[in-house]
Amino acid sequence: MKTPEVRELEVARVDGRGTSRRATDQVAVEAPLEFRIAGQPGAVTMRTPGQDEELVTGFLFAEGVITSAGDVRGWRRLAARVPEEEGNLLEVELRSPLVRKRMPERSLFASSSCGVCGKVSIASLHVHAPVVASDLRVGHAIVTALPGRLRGAQTVFAATGGLHAAGAFSAAGELLALREDVGRHNAVDKLVGWTLAAGVPRSHAILCVSGRLSFEILQKAVVAGFPVVAAVSAPSSAAVDLAERFGVTLCGFVRDGRFNVYSHAERVDS
Amino acid sequence: MKTPEVRELEVARVDGRGTSRRATDQVAVEAPLEFRIAGQPGAVTMRTPGQDEELVTGFLFAEGVITSAGDVRGWRRLAARVPEEEGNLLEVELRSPLVRKRMPERSLFASSSCGVCGKVSIASLHVHAPVVASDLRVGHAIVTALPGRLRGAQTVFAATGGLHAAGAFSAAGELLALREDVGRHNAVDKLVGWTLAAGVPRSHAILCVSGRLSFEILQKAVVAGFPVVAAVSAPSSAAVDLAERFGVTLCGFVRDGRFNVYSHAERVDS
Repeated sequence: MKTPEVRELEVARVDGRGTSRRATDQVAVEAPLEFRIAGQPGAVTMRTPGQDEELVTGFLFAEGVITSAGDVRGWRRLAARVPEEEGNLLEVELRSPLVRKRMPERSLFASSSCGVCGKVSIASLHVHAPVVASDLRVGHAIVTALPGRLRGAQTVFAATGGLHAAGAFSAAGELLALREDVGRHNAVDKLVGWTLAAGVPRSHAILCVSGRLSFEILQKAVVAGFPVVAAVSAPSSAAVDLAERFGVTLCGFVRDGRFNVYSHAERVDS
Repeated sequence: MKTPEVRELEVARVDGRGTSRRATDQVAVEAPLEFRIAGQPGAVTMRTPGQDEELVTGFLFAEGVITSAGDVRGWRRLAARVPEEEGNLLEVELRSPLVRKRMPERSLFASSSCGVCGKVSIASLHVHAPVVASDLRVGHAIVTALPGRLRGAQTVFAATGGLHAAGAFSAAGELLALREDVGRHNAVDKLVGWTLAAGVPRSHAILCVSGRLSFEILQKAVVAGFPVVAAVSAPSSAAVDLAERFGVTLCGFVRDGRFNVYSHAERVDS
């Protein structure tokens, strides 16, 4: 497979007897995206190239800077000054009243591409979002099927084994969209960016992610308003706390036809 | 198991027939650590409580603020003003000439607990470290044994299934230390912090991590000076690039008695 998301390289493949032979392997591309907002420095994130506009849209939405895709006026690819910037510089133009009103102080904003790292105090981690009030209900057989469907649709993962995935599913378990990235939080940002651009409400969708459920993923899920979040692996205590507080049904360890519900089990039908 | 790293909670356990029963599950604790440096705001990171001093030591080392454990003068737990700060506020005292000389601008420093997120330009991602010049050689059978030994020593993972691990091994494959955390980069920071405090040189040690090898992990490994890095999963392109450039032997997909060497295969003996 030859795409911007995959790079082929030569490796030494060592087998059980210590025999080494040259082989070709495919790795997931991880490259920095530097984005600017209205001419000002935005942030840098290590991401898998592709859907950069969705990534920045989802990120700005999670941070409360935009509330819809319509808040974005346009995009501009900037000219690279050095080779490693090639294809990795993006400027987003927002409606100027929004920028002035909603952009946090530059120094804070610049620091939070995963939604946590940049912040300087525990108080700044408070999630500002309404409780997720959705009457969505999901059958248990739908939940158990999600990780397999997510994995089955992961084309880049199939090639490289190296990518996280986030998928949006309907209540009937139909895959609406899938995004992959080396960064877990980027995959969610891209997916949320897609829902905004496509006009797909999250209030009746299920978010399923590969890997583990940690604070930053739940933070983004809560702001996006997904009523049900599922993962093949374990949640952290902070993820469970956020889900409980914001009305999100959290399903973890979804594997082998079973799962645990950590919060708001009322949405899961038996 | 009752430790600060694990929290017990009630879950609904749903089986293949949709039958739900109450059960007790253990999740990995994820809580924010806010650390301050000489009275100034440092950063916030979501981490698994425990070894906080090692975490901050390793982080400051990766960022070039300290070069040895001796650069830290002392630690102070700060009084919480609100419940969620309880046990999560830590002040590090450094020798003041160092602070003045090596601390980046506050706004930049505050933003980089994973070593990437806070940075505002691609140029700022440049890794400042010497090439790893070590004559360490590792037998292939040692490499294949590392992930199993790492996993076998992961006590919190065993309870929760929710933690990343980073382990330092001798060339003979002996586990020197293991650290676990909900954050991959935190596990590495804690481990490096331990090597600094214990006076263990990295130049003849192997770093083995659970999960994938991405840019931020290699960045920290390079600055720490580990000549060999191994993981059970895939590396990203940026991880391979850093390893190649800084003289690090990168072994990925170490599983089922086989592995791939992505860079500097000369250190692996057959």
